[in-house]
Formats: sequence, C-alpha cells, structure tokens
Amino acid sequence: MASWLQIPKNSPFSLANIPFGIISSSKISARVPAVAVGDYALNLSAFAASGGFSQLPAIQSHLNVFNQPTLNAFAALGRPVHRQVREYIQKVFSTETPFPQVLKDNASLQQEALLPLSEVTNHVPMQIGDYTDFYAGLNHAYNIGVLFRGPDNALQPNYTHLPVAYHGRASSVVASGTPLHRPQGQILTNPAATPKVPTFSPCKKLDIELEMAFFVSTPNDLGHPVHIDNAEDHIFGVVLMNDWSARDIQAWEYVPLGPFNAKNFGTTITPWVVLTDALEPFRTSGLEPGNRESLLPYLREKRAENAYDIPLEVEVTNAGGKATVISNSNAKNLLYSFPQMLAHHTITGCNLNTGDLLGSGTISGKDKQTEGSFLEQTNGKTPIKLADGSERFFLEDGDTVVLRGKAGTEGNYVGFGDCVGTILPPVKLNL
Amino acid sequence: MASWLQIPKNSPFSLANIPFGIISSSKISARVPAVAVGDYALNLSAFAASGGFSQLPAIQSHLNVFNQPTLNAFAALGRPVHRQVREYIQKVFSTETPFPQVLKDNASLQQEALLPLSEVTNHVPMQIGDYTDFYAGLNHAYNIGVLFRGPDNALQPNYTHLPVAYHGRASSVVASGTPLHRPQGQILTNPAATPKVPTFSPCKKLDIELEMAFFVSTPNDLGHPVHIDNAEDHIFGVVLMNDWSARDIQAWEYVPLGPFNAKNFGTTITPWVVLTDALEPFRTSGLEPGNRESLLPYLREKRAENAYDIPLEVEVTNAGGKATVISNSNAKNLLYSFPQMLAHHTITGCNLNTGDLLGSGTISGKDKQTEGSFLEQTNGKTPIKLADGSERFFLEDGDTVVLRGKAGTEGNYVGFGDCVGTILPPVKLNL
Repeated sequence: MASWLQIPKNSPFSLANIPFGIISSSKISARVPAVAVGDYALNLSAFAASGGFSQLPAIQSHLNVFNQPTLNAFAALGRPVHRQVREYIQKVFSTETPFPQVLKDNASLQQEALLPLSEVTNHVPMQIGDYTDFYAGLNHAYNIGVLFRGPDNALQPNYTHLPVAYHGRASSVVASGTPLHRPQGQILTNPAATPKVPTFSPCKKLDIELEMAFFVSTPNDLGHPVHIDNAEDHIFGVVLMNDWSARDIQAWEYVPLGPFNAKNFGTTITPWVVLTDALEPFRTSGLEPGNRESLLPYLREKRAENAYDIPLEVEVTNAGGKATVISNSNAKNLLYSFPQMLAHHTITGCNLNTGDLLGSGTISGKDKQTEGSFLEQTNGKTPIKLADGSERFFLEDGDTVVLRGKAGTEGNYVGFGDCVGTILPPVKLNL
Repeated sequence: MASWLQIPKNSPFSLANIPFGIISSSKISARVPAVAVGDYALNLSAFAASGGFSQLPAIQSHLNVFNQPTLNAFAALGRPVHRQVREYIQKVFSTETPFPQVLKDNASLQQEALLPLSEVTNHVPMQIGDYTDFYAGLNHAYNIGVLFRGPDNALQPNYTHLPVAYHGRASSVVASGTPLHRPQGQILTNPAATPKVPTFSPCKKLDIELEMAFFVSTPNDLGHPVHIDNAEDHIFGVVLMNDWSARDIQAWEYVPLGPFNAKNFGTTITPWVVLTDALEPFRTSGLEPGNRESLLPYLREKRAENAYDIPLEVEVTNAGGKATVISNSNAKNLLYSFPQMLAHHTITGCNLNTGDLLGSGTISGKDKQTEGSFLEQTNGKTPIKLADGSERFFLEDGDTVVLRGKAGTEGNYVGFGDCVGTILPPVKLNL
C-alpha cells in the first residue's frame, strides 16, 4: 500500500496499521482521538469537522465519537464500524485515493490536522473501567514455577484447563513515557528468620513484565457470558504493556489472595490501539491449537491458529548509558488467545464494559534472552549485562525500559510504537 | 434529635444518620442524589433547585453536585463539606429547625422532594473506578485457614503485619435488590483423582460474605502515598457489602494468583452511603489497638480505638419460606481499620480515585452463629437450619440473603438499610 504521505519504511505505523489513540498538543484545546500514520498523528476531531469523513456514509451519524477525550464512544460502535473507518483512512492516505479532495489535495486541512508525532502528547486512550491481567504466557508461568516449586510442579493443575488471571488496578495504568517512582512497602528481608518480621523499604527487586493487552469494545450484560465464537467481536484492539512488578513486596504479600501492592503502583501501555483487523495477516498457531479437544467447550475455538506472530523486544538503558536489547520474544508464546481470555472472564456472568483492559500475562520464549522479565532471565544467579558493562539483577533508579513489537515487513509494518518507562527514585516519605 | 417528620423509631435512617444515595423514580426524569430520612428520600436536586440550601453559604458555589447521576462530585468536595451538608440537613428536619421556611413549612417542596422510599429505586451511588477487597476479618481468615491448613498454620505470617487484599471487579458491583444468576464455570468435582480434570457446571457451593466497605472521597496522586494520619479524610462513607463467592470455582482457580471468576459475577452493596461522621459515636476498639507498636509506622494510628461497634446480621429466606437470621456479628471484628487499609493501599504509590470502593473482608465473630459466611458456619459438616426446617450448606436457587447493620438506640439508629440479593437459576448457555 503506497501513500502520498512520506512514511518511513521502518515505521510501525504504516498504512497497513492505522492505530487509534488520544492526543493533545499545544495546538489543540482538548484531548482528541487520532490515528497514527508514519511520523504523523491525524487529529480526527479536526478531520471530521472539516468533512474528512464525507465519503463514508456509515459514520455520519456518529461523528460525535471523534469529539471525545477517550476512544470509548468510538470503540462502543463495534467492530464493523472500526473496520470501515480504518479502511476509509487507508484510502484517504493512499496514493490512489478515490477522494483526493478530502486530505491529499487539501493543504489547509493537512496543516491543521496532520501533527508531527514529536509534537503531540499521547494519553491512555480509553477510560478503563476494570483492568484484568491474565497469566497465559506458558513459558513465563513455567519459568516462575520452576523458581518457586521446582520443575516437577512448575505448573499448577489448573493451568492447562483455564487462563489463570487476577483483577488488577485500573487507576495506575499510564501511557508510555510516564516515569514511575520506585515503590516502597513491606519486605521480608530475612525469610529464614523466625518469627517472620518485615521491614519497610524501597523495593529492591523491581522488575518488568513484557505483555500484550487488549481493550474491550462492546459490553456484555451481567449474568450473560460471551460465547467463544463471538468473543473476537468484543475486542477493540491491542497494545503493548509493561506490568511493572515489585518482586520482594510480592513475595511477602501474595499469600493467599495474590499480588496487590506489588503491581498496583503502575502499569505502562503503548498509547496507540492496533485494531485486531490490522493484526489479522499475522495470525499463527499459539503454543497449543485453539480448537484442542482437551479444552472445555466454552473455551474451544473454531480454528487452531489463534495467536499472532509479532516479534517483541525489551530494551534497557541505564542513566547516561547506552541502549541494550536484553530480550527478544514473540507474541505467539501464549497458551490462550484473547477470545479465550474474554470468554473465560465472562463465563460466570461477569460483565465487561467498553474500555476494560485485559492483559495477556508475561510473554517469554523458551530460549535464553527471550524471557519477558528480569527474574526469569537472571534466574537469581546470572546478571544481565548492559552495553556499558554494568550488570542488573533488577532495575536501578534511572533505568529506562522500552518494549517494542512490530509485525510484517519493511514499508508495511504493523507495530505498537515504544512502551517506555523510566524508574525515578522513591519519593521521600514523612512517616 | 427530634424531627417534625415522622420517623419510625426502628428506622436505620434516623436524624442521627443522614446517609447519601442515588435514586430514581417515576416522578424524576434522571438519577439524582438524595438523603434517606426515616421512610423518605429527600431529592437533593429538587431541594437545591428550590433554594433548600439557601441557609448554607458554603455549598452555594457547588450546587451542581446535586444534579449528577452519581455522588462522585459531591464526594470529591471533601469531608468538611460533607460534614456541613449533613449537619445542615439535620437542622432542616429538626423540630427546632432555625429555618422552617426551607422545608418544614414548605408543603409544595415537601410534596415535590420528599419521596416515600417505597416509591424510589436505588442505584449504585458512585461511579466506581476500582474495587479492592481486603481480608481484615481476623476470625474469618482464621476460620478459613483452619479449614484449609489446620489450626497451627491457619494465618499466614504476613497476616498480622499488613491488611491482605486483592483487586476485585468493579463492573459487577450492584445495588441491593439486584438478583443474580447462579454462576457457572470450571469445578474440580473429584480433587483426589489423577490427573485433575475439571468439569463445567453451575456452582454448587455458592456462599455469601458479610462485609462492610467504604467509598473514597478525595483522590491521591500516583506515586504519593496517603499518610495514615490523613487517611480518614479520604473516606467518604460506609456501606454493607455481600461479596458473593463461588467456593468450588474458587478452589480450582485460585492458585497462584487469587480469586477471579469465583467473585466477579456480582457483589451487592447497600445503596445509602453512611458518612463516617455518622459512625463516630460508635467508635470502639477493634481486635487490636490501631496504635500497636508491632505495626510498621506507616500503619500505626494515633488512637487505639479504630473500629466501629455496629451489630450486623445475616438473614436467609428460601423461596416461599420464612426468614431466618443465621448469624449475628459485629463490625468491630476487624484487625485493621479503614484508614489502615487506605494507607496500605497507597503505600507503594497506588493512586485512589473518588468513588473507589474498598471492602473490609468478611466480618465473623468468634462464637457459633456469628460467622460471616456459610462455609465457616457449617464447617463443611453441620448444615444451617432454616425456619421452615430445610437445611443449607450453601445457597439454593430462590434463596434471598439480607445483610443488616444498625448501631445506636431506638429513635437514633444509624444503619445501612437492607443489603438484599436473591439467587436466580443459572442462565441457559448454548455451548
């Protein structure tokens, strides 16, 4: 797909993508919906106001969704509308656009609505009602299980039957680029001592988790599960996610009800929502077929290929240092698909709302330097070496972590952009 | 405190209370804020519009908070304003009201704004961003621990050092009176078999949990914990909560990340938010002093008396049967206070927002028939006997559960009203 707009060949935002987000800039008075194309954001509020959608009859009665500070109203229109709008915008930017007057030949609208990405601020794109994090990365669950229980009991008996999950904290989901203070809390410094008495301390084992996550488009009613065959129609799109984890706080707090403070101080997502339609060309087999007979019927998909082949990477840069890619994984390293997660989430009757965020769990490969967390890669024994020679078991203050994911080939990449977070020193408390 | 309005002596909504809620009725076009007084709801939107607050200068610039479909805007004004408004409304209804023209002598406004509770519908009063459930009921944690691990290891080592909690599901929090379908999901029917293979089934061990919960008023910024001394100022008010629990689904799913589907199908709250000021006269010692030295400083309160003496009860009525009070407990059966929960929640830097809901955990006493759940009371051995002679280990379809809590004395009760839920049969699934 060729564009009249100059799009760098390595851009994650080729015409094959068209991800949706929420931006602000010094030129706009409020947060507005946008799409990313190459090095630009198209302000959809300005675009719509200037008749940009005039050649798309289906959206005419819904143009108000582009005057909202979140994507919820647009997402709630449902997948057929998202598809039409994405394909329409592809046509608008195409060299062969059938309606050049809309933007290609409209210099004043280009001037107004096409904003360099470097000049816009990205925001969390949805009003997130609830955030749930799954644990569908089989290799991650296995690696962690080995560390805690040894290889013979690494996976719990339920793991191959259901996508394990926990409810997470929606309020502290932040957009890429938001720095986070190192969390503080209770840590059991000496687990061998009796009695076990915690100390109060800044986290000393601050880790990352490489994840993907998806936003819910259309809701389901309380009491009424979503059928697995319909689950994909409730998925708006996908982002990358860094589920920052305080391992020492987690180790002390997590029995018997799971992680709490160890996770709720911040979760970083990429701000551009990649529609599932854009990922469709990269569909592939996950770790097990989606239609495998060992699954209970409510989780059994019609097709085997229920994952996406998307190379993922983790890069760490220490303060004043160089960037080091410490891990290369792939989105296909999941035992359960997004539709399976959604069907499982609702099977008891739980209602999902537009804007709910569901994470995949940490996506680790099987090989060395494909792990999605420091804990797995170092195994508590071998430090990660950064380009400047320094070593890491966990994150230090000033470290910047970037997650990236991009599928496809040069000139036609479908990617998420950078998921960036920097660790600030702990805040000074007056206890 | 005597009122010119006839208030039944056993009403939980005496003049000493003045709880806030959100109502609708056939007479009102939208959901509006209200307070409950005796058998009536005072429509605060109509009251404000007719100059009802004319004698309270402090609220004049904020009257728009009474034209909202939730209490969030009112809650966000902060505790000093809530206190002034509550005390003002007490004066409005007082026999000795200094401004009788406002309502006492204003028959047309009474006609318009005073609605019989029997004619209004109550709604979840806040837009809940996140819902967190603690586990601070020591006796409950002990009873459950004995069932799972025996008396010697009933409590985990962290239990006496921090208020254990998990993030819950906000979307399925419903107002009292909302019926819920019996959830369905994965159950391990035969835990002794190898390999462990679950079946799909309606929940066979559907239980209740008797809890209190509080709403957050003013938020804190991400990265900035709330000091324990200031925590109470972030609390708007308190409700009763039934944290319905599918014990068999929970037993299979909960390792290693905690309860998920077992809890997310519905959580019922009373719709009237009782301000903490109204509960102040009932302050008492909890299970341990709030200023005990064994606590880390961030959890140590200035005063020992950090609980409330509020008798609580659980009533069960089977379809067509009689009501049976199966349990009598008390709100003081908590090891941690609401301010301690809030301080702990934010200690890592987690941001709380106006409208967030934080539950206490199940409130059980130490004696027989003071337990807050069926699981504890039956111990898996002795069924609960209902008035009509039928027996229960867990809830059956058609059962109605009512939680109640009321402090004080006749004519001056401060209570929550009924927290009612009826179990409907499972929905028919087409798997």
